[in-house]
Parts: sequence; structure tokens; C-alpha cells
Amino acid sequence: MEIITTVSRMKEYVRGAKGRGETICLVPTMGYLHEGHLDLMRMGRPLADRLVISIFVNPTQFGAGEDLDKYPRDLPRDTALAQSTGVECIFHPDALEMYPVGYQTYINVEEITDGLCGASRPGHFRGVTTVVAKLFNIVEPDVSVFGEKDYQQLAVIRKMVEDLNMAVQVLAHPTVREEGGLAMSSRNKYLSPEERESALVLNRSLKRAAGRVKGGERSAGVIRSEVVAAIEATPGCRIDYVEIVHPDTLKPLETIESKAVMALAVRVGKTRLIDNMTLGV
Amino acid sequence: MEIITTVSRMKEYVRGAKGRGETICLVPTMGYLHEGHLDLMRMGRPLADRLVISIFVNPTQFGAGEDLDKYPRDLPRDTALAQSTGVECIFHPDALEMYPVGYQTYINVEEITDGLCGASRPGHFRGVTTVVAKLFNIVEPDVSVFGEKDYQQLAVIRKMVEDLNMAVQVLAHPTVREEGGLAMSSRNKYLSPEERESALVLNRSLKRAAGRVKGGERSAGVIRSEVVAAIEATPGCRIDYVEIVHPDTLKPLETIESKAVMALAVRVGKTRLIDNMTLGV
Repeated sequence: MEIITTVSRMKEYVRGAKGRGETICLVPTMGYLHEGHLDLMRMGRPLADRLVISIFVNPTQFGAGEDLDKYPRDLPRDTALAQSTGVECIFHPDALEMYPVGYQTYINVEEITDGLCGASRPGHFRGVTTVVAKLFNIVEPDVSVFGEKDYQQLAVIRKMVEDLNMAVQVLAHPTVREEGGLAMSSRNKYLSPEERESALVLNRSLKRAAGRVKGGERSAGVIRSEVVAAIEATPGCRIDYVEIVHPDTLKPLETIESKAVMALAVRVGKTRLIDNMTLGV
Repeated sequence: MEIITTVSRMKEYVRGAKGRGETICLVPTMGYLHEGHLDLMRMGRPLADRLVISIFVNPTQFGAGEDLDKYPRDLPRDTALAQSTGVECIFHPDALEMYPVGYQTYINVEEITDGLCGASRPGHFRGVTTVVAKLFNIVEPDVSVFGEKDYQQLAVIRKMVEDLNMAVQVLAHPTVREEGGLAMSSRNKYLSPEERESALVLNRSLKRAAGRVKGGERSAGVIRSEVVAAIEATPGCRIDYVEIVHPDTLKPLETIESKAVMALAVRVGKTRLIDNMTLGV
């Protein structure tokens, strides 16, 4: 396996692969890999001749006061884990390699970044789309795999790819959960044992919401209130948002007529966690 | 020669060419071709196996009250002219093909779009970079040729390509001028005979400025004042901007120490014309 730190070497690697007629699958990550990431890689492995992952804690998607500096990093462990899933190349540039002095170009997907995490993290998705477009241009993947845990991110990237006519196929992998239902996230590391217990309310209330819809409830407001009440009653939890939205446009729904997505962000202690679930009628 | 109007057929054409190992040169235009465009095509012809041009009057780069609706169009004439230079394919989508309902993704190059035309035409370069990125993603050119007449556009596209790690090589062609020195532009069609005469002051004063620098003048302020005075003394001319800037950053210069670019935009009657010249020391 090769670890590549420069754009020029990565492009050379890609030229070599393309020259041999090989296809490429890219799984972009910020590292500190967990089973969720590894499942994306396992899904990507048979989809192309070359499986490339990127490990890059992207500064442009962190806001002021967010956890850029303390975001967990462990490259040796990540390398071993990636290799175990059949990854052939890790692209691991530093911030200056991706954003040299004088850098000034950004991509913005507008409407679907207005709500949810876009509302509470201004500029976040502008950083995400910019870095993902750069990674797509550098690695030229035929296919790229993203986790559904970051539901809005997935929708935003799909919209960018569609709008800008990018050649890559974007695939989604269902959220991977710990025992108890907590969605896997590198940020779970920040949780104390008590907070981890409290955090179970996220998935529990999403499942209850899905059950309510299956049981016939159609009012987004009613279901939302129940979830809000359950989370507010849990020690250490502070709601950032709880929304029921259209799966593609991410616009809030009043009535659940066909498919809908319930998405939420909750601070558990100082850690901001997100989760979501499709509410199928 | 093939005229292609859909993104999907254009991508198919490109896949075919790439599959045969052919390279592609793209010359993006808004049509109503003149000798300036044809020279870009003649320059592009030997640079790749396939010469593709696009003809698309891009709505997102026109501001409210600008000349989007009356921008001149003549596809039959354009087709014949393009064919005469060896163009093999014209990509000619309509606005809805490029910007379907729900379109919402834009690319912004920030600092170097602040001044010059970026200041007088807010949103203009956002439209330019967005459509050029889309064209690059659709046509996947190895090389693309732009005219130096639109100097800021060229600099902005180069910056976008560098920042977003795009694979295309961007080449510039010197401004092509009519007899008398007027820079060729599809908008010259709007000029009355008297306005056309007045418009010669643009190139004449740029040449005089270049001569002043060659003669030893180093003060951007002095040279700028002379150009402003010459244009203001010409009937029907109203200055939009006259600036002396760094060739890459486009930041205004006070002293001309090495290379500089003098760029100007002037309304002649109702027609806004631009021109520029490198002031070499």
C-alpha cells in the first residue's frame, strides 16, 4: 500500500492506473477510522480496480470555535485498518498542500445547505463541497462512497455532482451503529460513559418516530414534538435541531406523504452528534 | 462536423474519443464568432486530436439589466466559420440543459474577482467560473484556449483550475484587433460608425501607456491619469474603470516595477467595451 502526501504524486498514480485502463473508487475520510469507515471501504473494494481513500482533516469545513485542533488523528492505526479492507493507496496531504498560500476558490451548493447542519454550521458545506471537488479532480474516481450518517453531506455532494456534471458515481452506505444504536462517529471518542448512555436517545427516538409513521401518524409536527420531548428529558442533551425533511430537497415537511427523513443534531455534554433515519410510509 | 445539444450526448462523444486514446481541445465561446474566436480555434487545432468548441450564451454571467436578451446570435454562420478552422464538434446546449430546474451550485474565485469587471459586474465571474467548470467536466479537455482580451476572465479561470486541481491546461491567445486597433468583440456590432471611431481611443491610449513605461515612467498614477484624460476627452466615452494591476493577483499597483497589466472598461454610447495591455518594463 502506498501513502501519498502530494497532489502531483497522487495525479501521477491516477495517470498510471488510468493508463492501464483501471477504474478507481475513492472513499474520502477525515481519518480516525471506525467500523463505519471500514464498511465504506468494504463496499467500495469490489466496485473498482483500485481502492483509494483520502485521510484529510479539512480545515475549511470547520467553523471558528469548532474542534479542528482537537479532532482525533491516528495515522498508523488508520493505515493498518485501511490495509485490512484492501485499500491500495491512502492520499494524506497536509493543509498547505490542499490550500496553498493565495488559495481562493470555493464551491457552494445553495438551497439544500440552508437548513439542518448548514444553518448551525455556516460555511461548513462550502468547505465540504470544495474539498470533495478537489479530491474528485485529483483522484478522478469512477465511483465514490459516502456514509448516510452524514445525510445532508451526502445530499449536498450528490447535488454538486449533478449540477456541475461531474463524472463520478456517488454511492451511499447505510449508517453503521454501535451496539445500543449509537451511530459510529470519530467524535464518539469525546463522550464520557454517562454521555454515551445519554446519546442512545438519538437513535432510540428516531426508531420510535419511524414506528409512529408506520403506525399511521402523518403529522411531522406531532412526531417532531415527541422526539424533542424525549431528547429534552435526557440528562446532558441539548437540541441543535430536530427536523423532518424531504429526502432530496431537504425542505421541512408538514405532512409525511411518501418518504421523509428525520434528521437531528444534539449536543451531548460538549459533543455535537448527528443522526438521521428514513421515515417510510 | 457534429452539433451536440445535450450533455449526455456530449459525454458519450467524449467517452468515444477518450476510448480511442484521443486528446481534446475545447474553445468555449458565446457564439457570434469573429476573427478573435477563429484564431483561438486555429491555435487549438494542432494541440489535440479533437477540436471541440462550445457556443452557449451563459445566462448566469449576465447581470440584471445587461444584454443577455439582445446578445447577438447566428448559429448557421458560426457553424460554417467553425468548420473552416477544423472544428469537429460544436457543443450548443440551451439554458435549461445547462441549468435544469433546481440548479443551485456555483463556483466562486474570491479575491481576484473583487476589482475590475468583478467590481462593476457583480456575480459575473461566478457565472463564468461555474459554466466553464461545467464545460470542463462535460468535455474533459486536455487543453482549453481563452483570449487575452478578457484578461480578468483568463486569470480567474487559471486560478480556478489551479485551486480546484483541474486536469486541463489553460492557454491564452493574444487579443485580435481590427484595423485601427479596436479589440475584436461580438459586442462591437452594437457600435454606430461614430462610436466605432471613438472606441479607437481604448487601444490608442493603452499603446501610449505602454510607450510611457518603456520610456521610463514608473508611476501607475501618472500613466493612469493620462489615459483617463484621453478617454474623457473622446466624444461618447464614459469610463467604467482604468486600472494598472499585477498580472496574476490583479491587485492595483502604485509603481510599475516589473510586469503590469493596464486594464480598462469604457462605455462607448451604450456599449461597454473592455481592453488591456501588458506594460513591460
